[in-house]
Amino acid sequence: MKSIVQIIQERPWVGWLIFGLTVVVVFLAGLLATSIMERRGETAALFQMVKPIADWEPRNEVWGENFPRQYQTYQSTLDTTFRSKHGGGAMIDHLEKYPNLVILWAGYPFSWEYNQARGHYHAINDIRNILRTGAPNETTLSPMPATCWTCKSTDVPRMMKEKGIGEFYKANWKDWGDEVVNPIGCQDCHDPKTMNLRITRPALIEAFERRGKDLSRATHQEMRTLVCAQCHVEYYFKGKEEKYLTFPWDGGTSVEAMEAYYDAIEFSDWTHALSRAPMLKGQHPDYEIYLTGVHAERGVACADCHMPYRSEGGVKFTDHKIQSPLNSIAAACQVCHRESEATLMDNVYSRQDKVIELRSRVEEALAKTHIEAKIAWDRGATEAEMKEVLQLIRHAQWRWDYAAASHGGTFHSPLESARVLGSALEKAGEARVRLAAILERRGVKTPLELPDISTKAKAQAYLGLNMEKLLAEKKEFLEKVVPLWDSRAAERQGKMNAD
Amino acid sequence: MKSIVQIIQERPWVGWLIFGLTVVVVFLAGLLATSIMERRGETAALFQMVKPIADWEPRNEVWGENFPRQYQTYQSTLDTTFRSKHGGGAMIDHLEKYPNLVILWAGYPFSWEYNQARGHYHAINDIRNILRTGAPNETTLSPMPATCWTCKSTDVPRMMKEKGIGEFYKANWKDWGDEVVNPIGCQDCHDPKTMNLRITRPALIEAFERRGKDLSRATHQEMRTLVCAQCHVEYYFKGKEEKYLTFPWDGGTSVEAMEAYYDAIEFSDWTHALSRAPMLKGQHPDYEIYLTGVHAERGVACADCHMPYRSEGGVKFTDHKIQSPLNSIAAACQVCHRESEATLMDNVYSRQDKVIELRSRVEEALAKTHIEAKIAWDRGATEAEMKEVLQLIRHAQWRWDYAAASHGGTFHSPLESARVLGSALEKAGEARVRLAAILERRGVKTPLELPDISTKAKAQAYLGLNMEKLLAEKKEFLEKVVPLWDSRAAERQGKMNAD
Repeated sequence: MKSIVQIIQERPWVGWLIFGLTVVVVFLAGLLATSIMERRGETAALFQMVKPIADWEPRNEVWGENFPRQYQTYQSTLDTTFRSKHGGGAMIDHLEKYPNLVILWAGYPFSWEYNQARGHYHAINDIRNILRTGAPNETTLSPMPATCWTCKSTDVPRMMKEKGIGEFYKANWKDWGDEVVNPIGCQDCHDPKTMNLRITRPALIEAFERRGKDLSRATHQEMRTLVCAQCHVEYYFKGKEEKYLTFPWDGGTSVEAMEAYYDAIEFSDWTHALSRAPMLKGQHPDYEIYLTGVHAERGVACADCHMPYRSEGGVKFTDHKIQSPLNSIAAACQVCHRESEATLMDNVYSRQDKVIELRSRVEEALAKTHIEAKIAWDRGATEAEMKEVLQLIRHAQWRWDYAAASHGGTFHSPLESARVLGSALEKAGEARVRLAAILERRGVKTPLELPDISTKAKAQAYLGLNMEKLLAEKKEFLEKVVPLWDSRAAERQGKMNAD
Repeated sequence: MKSIVQIIQERPWVGWLIFGLTVVVVFLAGLLATSIMERRGETAALFQMVKPIADWEPRNEVWGENFPRQYQTYQSTLDTTFRSKHGGGAMIDHLEKYPNLVILWAGYPFSWEYNQARGHYHAINDIRNILRTGAPNETTLSPMPATCWTCKSTDVPRMMKEKGIGEFYKANWKDWGDEVVNPIGCQDCHDPKTMNLRITRPALIEAFERRGKDLSRATHQEMRTLVCAQCHVEYYFKGKEEKYLTFPWDGGTSVEAMEAYYDAIEFSDWTHALSRAPMLKGQHPDYEIYLTGVHAERGVACADCHMPYRSEGGVKFTDHKIQSPLNSIAAACQVCHRESEATLMDNVYSRQDKVIELRSRVEEALAKTHIEAKIAWDRGATEAEMKEVLQLIRHAQWRWDYAAASHGGTFHSPLESARVLGSALEKAGEARVRLAAILERRGVKTPLELPDISTKAKAQAYLGLNMEKLLAEKKEFLEKVVPLWDSRAAERQGKMNAD
């Protein structure tokens, strides 16, 4: 048998062939090994400012000139078509869908109008349109303090800088009507020089400070949740005059800890028009409930699911169309979960359905409780008899609201929501046990025949609300006052452009 | 520059070096590619029978001669040391831990004694020891039918073969005392020739047939759950005489579907000694609750977590120490979950704690309801007044028991458990609202001063139970009757060996 050298001597191309094959094989092996071992580093987020952005610049379109992808996706939050089995597209009228809520909020403007939350882009319009901000004009005030603007606009940090935080809050809502005009956007979460995430709302920083935590030490991944926690939390307006935005977290963020906080300072948002209970209105404790769920436990930030990474023309960026992850399951969920879209959607809905079932049971029980308490008062129940009942109602409804008012809580932490709703059911039941005895003592047979509150209109009529008047006043406000606000703002912003 | 052929001509070892390196590189590339693309097939479960096993062989040690690893791990279920924050080692006395249960089961033998389930190895001893099987002797019967043996022993399929299924069930429990002596084991789930999984208990097959499903078409992975579902389910004894073991699944396996099934046939396990409600005793609907959880949804079988694969001396086998996966997190959980042992353990307990909190609220409410109903009867409440109350009590306690009696339900499906417990709380509350009115009408002030039922002994004393008598009778039974059973069984099994 010839040696390889002999063969190569006779046919030199064989040598070249072997050499060439070796090169190819080694090259392919190298490619293979690289493709296995490589951990693709996140592309560094390089950017070049086309036009520098001023500190506290509120106009999203100015930021957008530098960041077209982020701005375009942000703009698309205008589209609120939501892929949901509960029906998408139009904004849901919660009072129409769940008329018991009218009863639960009797004596409080939420019983007038309460709609599904829409995208950040709509924040200014929605707060102007909603009945509970009233119809202020030159001579009348809004029933709301300026604190209500805090989470609605990129103009807020600018105004706080100009007026001072305390002064900003304690004005009337109408006072800043021509100043606060740009909806939630870039400036709320980003530093205009470095684009780093930053906290612009003092309440979150102050709440952390009171618990001995320094927010400036938060990691980038933590900030991807904390910028949302500036607003998506439970809060109240502290002080009769000051209306200082405050998070009730001093004892912790659990439903029990916040309840204890409010009890200790004897705070109540309003006195219930039927039961006369000193009520708490839960805001949207999204962050607090999220903390109790598995995604938080696994280090998943709000932005991971609500602002997943996208890739366009080889550029990776964060999708600024903040929306339900169900609208982008592939980008949001399937990064971690290997199940099909349909399965993941079913998984979300099956959890939500179970919690919503419990929530509806509580709403039913609470509506009965308020009405029974009203009858008890009407029949001469004494303060002493009712004291414990009112406290049970306060706690039951607070717990219900903690679970109900949170955006997405039924998915963020279904089990914690169910636990809290269960405790609400128990407390409402205890209140009703006492009410049954009080009523029976006065010859009122229980269970009572309840009034017809099967639609929003019927429930509002039961409360004697003059909805026509409220709607007419609001209409006039929107037609006469709001255009003035807008033209003054446009003039001011025109000057900003000229500067 | 010299050509490669010239170099090789001058120094032939260079040619060999290049050739050798090529061979090495190609070989390594091959290894690498193989190691990447290979999906390690499961080692075929080859076995060689040392000694053939007869059909319906009940003795686990006979099977064990052929399958030492499986048998040894099975034997270790003798050890019930359970790694749990709730305390391990000794069998938990549930009545001592949750004295409300004594009240919930008033008039039913569960109020005498109810202990934590132990390993399969203990099944025969535990059913002999428990007070509710009574103290039968030559002249007296057990209060229980032979149906109670069905899930306790490998002797059951043999006896059903010998006596017939219906005849097996309808005997008295004591009738098979010397026949049913080998605890749950090999024969219950395996075919002695092929070791394939098989269903040996007719109730499961019958329940599937009634729903038009053919169990013989189940896949191996499904069988790894279904063999457990022979016993770990909700069931009842159908027929006053027949006591035929039946699963109430004709309308489905949800808590509502089974409740509707029992209501439709007007079945009740007993009449409550205090409230006189027609009660249902939930068995252990482990399979039913598991079906509603995420592990079932993802195709995970009972055996995947409770009998994970182990490897010993290169042999892969199924661990037959059936136990809490918390005792073997690495083998059971970390196959899929990448979190640390401590994290996974916390995750399990945090879910369980929330459900147990709700469960305790329901127990508290139910105990009050039964006692209030008793006072109502004592004060002359009428059947008409009480009718709705009793139905509410029946449903509330059934729903509680569905969630409470299930082994591991608080983890298998925490949210479904919470949903069901929430509905129990609502129904108990509704019952108490009606009871408050009934009591008040008779001048009884509510809320009532409740009796002291803070310990098992106090709760049993409140019910007027003569525990000393029950314990003395059981002692005599264990000392006099059981040894007879064992010696007769030994004699019979000795003959089997001689055959």
